[in-house]
Amino acid sequence: MEKKEISQAVITRLPRYYRYLGELLENSIERISSNELSKRMQVTASQIRQDLNNFGGFGQQGYGYNVKYLHTEIGKILGLDDKHNLIIIGAGNLGQALANYTSFERIGFVIKGLFDINPKLNGITVRGIPVKRMDEMQNFIKEHSIDMAILTIPKERAIEVATMLVDFGIKGIWNFAHTDLNVPDDVVVENVHLSESLMRLSYNLKQEENKNNVK
Amino acid sequence: MEKKEISQAVITRLPRYYRYLGELLENSIERISSNELSKRMQVTASQIRQDLNNFGGFGQQGYGYNVKYLHTEIGKILGLDDKHNLIIIGAGNLGQALANYTSFERIGFVIKGLFDINPKLNGITVRGIPVKRMDEMQNFIKEHSIDMAILTIPKERAIEVATMLVDFGIKGIWNFAHTDLNVPDDVVVENVHLSESLMRLSYNLKQEENKNNVK
Repeated sequence: MEKKEISQAVITRLPRYYRYLGELLENSIERISSNELSKRMQVTASQIRQDLNNFGGFGQQGYGYNVKYLHTEIGKILGLDDKHNLIIIGAGNLGQALANYTSFERIGFVIKGLFDINPKLNGITVRGIPVKRMDEMQNFIKEHSIDMAILTIPKERAIEVATMLVDFGIKGIWNFAHTDLNVPDDVVVENVHLSESLMRLSYNLKQEENKNNVK
Repeated sequence: MEKKEISQAVITRLPRYYRYLGELLENSIERISSNELSKRMQVTASQIRQDLNNFGGFGQQGYGYNVKYLHTEIGKILGLDDKHNLIIIGAGNLGQALANYTSFERIGFVIKGLFDINPKLNGITVRGIPVKRMDEMQNFIKEHSIDMAILTIPKERAIEVATMLVDFGIKGIWNFAHTDLNVPDDVVVENVHLSESLMRLSYNLKQEENKNNVK
């Protein structure tokens, strides 16, 4: 099943299913029809069925979906049953904000250390997580079996640091720096380009204004 | 031109063009062929031509693109020639990190105020931007012609606060709360769901591991 290539559009929707199912679980809802799920998520029921059929279905005619089972299975598909140890490079406001999120840990992503070039930050802790010097990174990665890194540094240094991380064995980078990284094919990068998100908002806002001007 | 419906996929790529063109400008590059742009951006040249043709082209056979002109025109399409006044609701680490970004201002998004329920934060400033009480919000929005808000509060209060913002006249919300908002059709929401981004990274990392296990 894992070997089938799933489109990135489906993969983008899976975490949203996971979130909604998690909320249903919190509200002790044990089963749900695709129609009901469709109404809550504002996705068509056929889209839901089609997405989940990529992974073998999970639904049962006349019964709907077992919420807990589906939540667990989607979690497995997303790899949330694996545990990852992470470091954050850049202990500024954004790095500290991310270190403070406990929700990442609940889905298997444990932040073990922060790194920063600013000597003033060296030695402080964020939610018990130590801020280290950059030259301590290589050993830290080995000692704590780190396989993922979060980049929250300015774009000027991001490409260089990413190359270093790859050399140290990092397999996945969550990149908040405003640039594209240049890493080998077997290293996974997920970009969060905030300015680009803001520009999409700007575009859609302008479209909405134009609509109103036409009226 | 504005009335033509452009797909969200194209709109998602436009900010990236804008960023690359901005970098070319910084390096004093005046014109570029679609082939050269294609190589840098790792997008096919035909994709670039097709995307830009949505807005009437801009290229010239045998000359390529005038970088400054194209950068300016894409900026206009994205609405970056408009100015927006913003507030941030939630002055925690993430809210403060966003308030500290000066790059948003350069594309027309000026953060005028932060708001937080925590009385300890009331009265402090972040890069000169004051943190205010929630009950000061309505007047502040009117006085400073605020049309956009950034939500960096926990999901539990996000829906309620979004409804309030809409009542106060906000037209666009950049939502970092881990929930979907329920707003009228003429209010634009752009979501940054960090956990979902992390789950996509997790999924792609797992696929990569599976590939290596098969080898």
